[in-house]
Amino acid sequence: MSEARRFIKKLESIVGREYVIHHPDDLLVYEYDGSVDKAMPRAVVLPASTEEVSRVLVVADEARVPVVGRGSGTGLSGGAIALEDGLQVALTRMKRILEIDERNRLAVVEPGVINLHLDEAARKRGLRYAPDPSSQKACSLGGNVAENAGGPHCLAYGVTSNHVLGMEVVLEDGSVTWLGGKIRNPVGYDLRGAFVGSEGMFGLATKIIVRLLPAPPTVKTYLAVFEDVGGACLAVSSVIGQGMVPAAMEIMDALSIEAVQRVTDVGLPSGAGAVLLVELEGEDEEVEDQGLQVEAILTESGASEVRWAESAQERERLWSARKNALGALGALAPNYYLVDGVVPRTRLTESLERVSEISAQYDIPIANVFHAGDGNLHPCILFDERKPGDVERVMEVGGRILEVCVELGGALSGEHGIGLEKKAYMPLVFTNGDMDVMARVRGAFAPQGRFNPGKVFPGGPEYTHSMQRGAVLAAGPGAHV
Amino acid sequence: MSEARRFIKKLESIVGREYVIHHPDDLLVYEYDGSVDKAMPRAVVLPASTEEVSRVLVVADEARVPVVGRGSGTGLSGGAIALEDGLQVALTRMKRILEIDERNRLAVVEPGVINLHLDEAARKRGLRYAPDPSSQKACSLGGNVAENAGGPHCLAYGVTSNHVLGMEVVLEDGSVTWLGGKIRNPVGYDLRGAFVGSEGMFGLATKIIVRLLPAPPTVKTYLAVFEDVGGACLAVSSVIGQGMVPAAMEIMDALSIEAVQRVTDVGLPSGAGAVLLVELEGEDEEVEDQGLQVEAILTESGASEVRWAESAQERERLWSARKNALGALGALAPNYYLVDGVVPRTRLTESLERVSEISAQYDIPIANVFHAGDGNLHPCILFDERKPGDVERVMEVGGRILEVCVELGGALSGEHGIGLEKKAYMPLVFTNGDMDVMARVRGAFAPQGRFNPGKVFPGGPEYTHSMQRGAVLAAGPGAHV
Repeated sequence: MSEARRFIKKLESIVGREYVIHHPDDLLVYEYDGSVDKAMPRAVVLPASTEEVSRVLVVADEARVPVVGRGSGTGLSGGAIALEDGLQVALTRMKRILEIDERNRLAVVEPGVINLHLDEAARKRGLRYAPDPSSQKACSLGGNVAENAGGPHCLAYGVTSNHVLGMEVVLEDGSVTWLGGKIRNPVGYDLRGAFVGSEGMFGLATKIIVRLLPAPPTVKTYLAVFEDVGGACLAVSSVIGQGMVPAAMEIMDALSIEAVQRVTDVGLPSGAGAVLLVELEGEDEEVEDQGLQVEAILTESGASEVRWAESAQERERLWSARKNALGALGALAPNYYLVDGVVPRTRLTESLERVSEISAQYDIPIANVFHAGDGNLHPCILFDERKPGDVERVMEVGGRILEVCVELGGALSGEHGIGLEKKAYMPLVFTNGDMDVMARVRGAFAPQGRFNPGKVFPGGPEYTHSMQRGAVLAAGPGAHV
Repeated sequence: MSEARRFIKKLESIVGREYVIHHPDDLLVYEYDGSVDKAMPRAVVLPASTEEVSRVLVVADEARVPVVGRGSGTGLSGGAIALEDGLQVALTRMKRILEIDERNRLAVVEPGVINLHLDEAARKRGLRYAPDPSSQKACSLGGNVAENAGGPHCLAYGVTSNHVLGMEVVLEDGSVTWLGGKIRNPVGYDLRGAFVGSEGMFGLATKIIVRLLPAPPTVKTYLAVFEDVGGACLAVSSVIGQGMVPAAMEIMDALSIEAVQRVTDVGLPSGAGAVLLVELEGEDEEVEDQGLQVEAILTESGASEVRWAESAQERERLWSARKNALGALGALAPNYYLVDGVVPRTRLTESLERVSEISAQYDIPIANVFHAGDGNLHPCILFDERKPGDVERVMEVGGRILEVCVELGGALSGEHGIGLEKKAYMPLVFTNGDMDVMARVRGAFAPQGRFNPGKVFPGGPEYTHSMQRGAVLAAGPGAHV
């Protein structure tokens, strides 16, 4: 029996034959995620428990096979793609909500639980799980942890790392450890923040304890129509400038509106330059008061129309327009490449002007639909991968946009991670010294570098660090403060 | 010239003679911090810039001398005490507020900036720095970062790690790196959370970027008087149970009230079993509405009296009673030992009953003054260190209280850190596997283990890890979830 065959056999002995996928035809769906990258894994294993995950990792460790965790595969930076003939550990079978503790407002879940399912379970008890990626109907909590996922409501409530209290984690050698726990401020080094957003390179989370928040009694969703994106950005700045932090503030530009309306008529004004969604949450009176302020600001900022959802259905419809906007872009072009960059909120208008210039310069359409309150841009570059040279041009445009973000004092990613997509751009914001520290911390969790190799760090599949004594002495705050 | 002398000379050549302290008489004040531990450092050096810190660390690295950062020395777990003939790097000269960015609501400070000074500077611009340890008039931001400091207002706003956006950090070999920056959700591994609360064992922060929040327009502070602590705890649970998160909820028991009133009459009701401070913040109407709810709950929970501060002066007076309570305990006994434990909020009453039983059993007075909303107990064991056997008995009592906290599902520390004081208790909540991961992450930041050796990990001055393959496979959530 070949080495490779023996490896599969060992996995089968742990999880059962039906839960090891290794035939090339069956592996096709595991080749890609929500990004533009793809690679064929050696095999996919679907464990059902922490113990099975641990035993799988021992086998992989012995065989020196790289390991990549996979949730729902909705990630947008290539995080779940297995390079180097790696083994994918799909955690979709581990999808139990183990506990919802209403009094202490927390939930204990397995990594395969779908984001929306947790929120729905929480809402039955008057609570909510705040981070809500646009893919929340499909994406899993384990993937949210790996990529430190955001979402529209992260404006008021913060991204995934602000909501994770603790994790049970399986390390490279199969050992199981806990980072954090049910208590809000853990004792000992607090390694939760390092693990959340480590893009699958530190270990596999097999249980996740998250904070739940009280569901707000009142929600009011405004839709404001603007002649151009600049007006919408101005409104966002004014709202924040008045000391308000709405639950969400989302902008869609003309191209996105057109795409959404082509797919289904959700009542977005055709021909508008931009729409801004503002959602307020809280006690009745508070929302009423803030609502009056928001209406005034929207009008002063030049909105040609301001309306609000009169019913839960209408609110749902507005949000589905926003959350399905990316999918709708398919009506305009066969492919899109979604850029995820951040700029200081105060430079939002400027950054969009630059994106628009780049679009004109390269003669390539770019739709913008983004978390305006957070300064988190999502330019979607529309293209056709069958047209020779289009992919290369798109990558170049994406790079140019990221450079603009960094130049304006921003960052490479707001919520999708670095993965494969952006690793080449890491040196734009990090010195070698910065990356050395990251690589060393990775080495502390995963000494063999066997988890998700080839991601995050620039260069070939494996980034090797070489700490240079005093070499970065002169490094100032640089681009990344 | 002796080796030791040469070391001092080198330091003097970096910072100037007047900023290196090495005469034993001069070192006396650097021997202790706010804890009960002490040790004489080899020398204290006071650098004025990141570059000087870096050069000092290169010298210490070459001489293989352990290094301990020191801010104001107000820490309560022995974090700033230099063991093993170590060098203290006092960062008190680096006390500039480098920038307050009102629009992006952040400040860039040096580590020696006093917590209260930052808050005062922010308030001049309508902003605030939320974490407010009781020692905020004296403690420094660098120390707050090292210990992940809390404070009464952390109930609503979270502890230090929730407010640190980025840090410039000098590592063991003198190299300088940045963790995080001005952007809210940083790219690459997020190592801020790991560094904050690492108790000086990873590196020295030389610049700190913190989030500022809008100062609330209205603040209302209630004082409720109860016959016993149980009633006050019930009120705390009810307030949280109604979905409110006040800015602060603090309880003082009979012994603490007595101590405070002996020192200065701040109008606390003598003979009361407990007082509860509840502070509400927000817009006028919101505070008014919540105030009515809180008043009703306090009365229903059995408060014999409910009043509120009618003026800023009165509010100030109530808070100074709370924040000076520890100092006031000096009126009751020559020494006190402050325990810092956490329990789930729902088990607050039970834990206080257990503390009271322990007090009776050991016949030793224990005053309680604590962050009730967070479930963060602060039993203060009163004693006289000159009485033979008292110190040992106090340590035993402290250990018993921590065991109770863990038994009730809590943690070893809410905000003061582990340091020297509690390292023996780490195995109560962590497996060897858990501590191995911590030690490895420490090794990633500080491969030589030269920063603050002898802290946090149990056992002798140096904890050495030995990752055992699969050894902790069976480790469940255990005590720490």
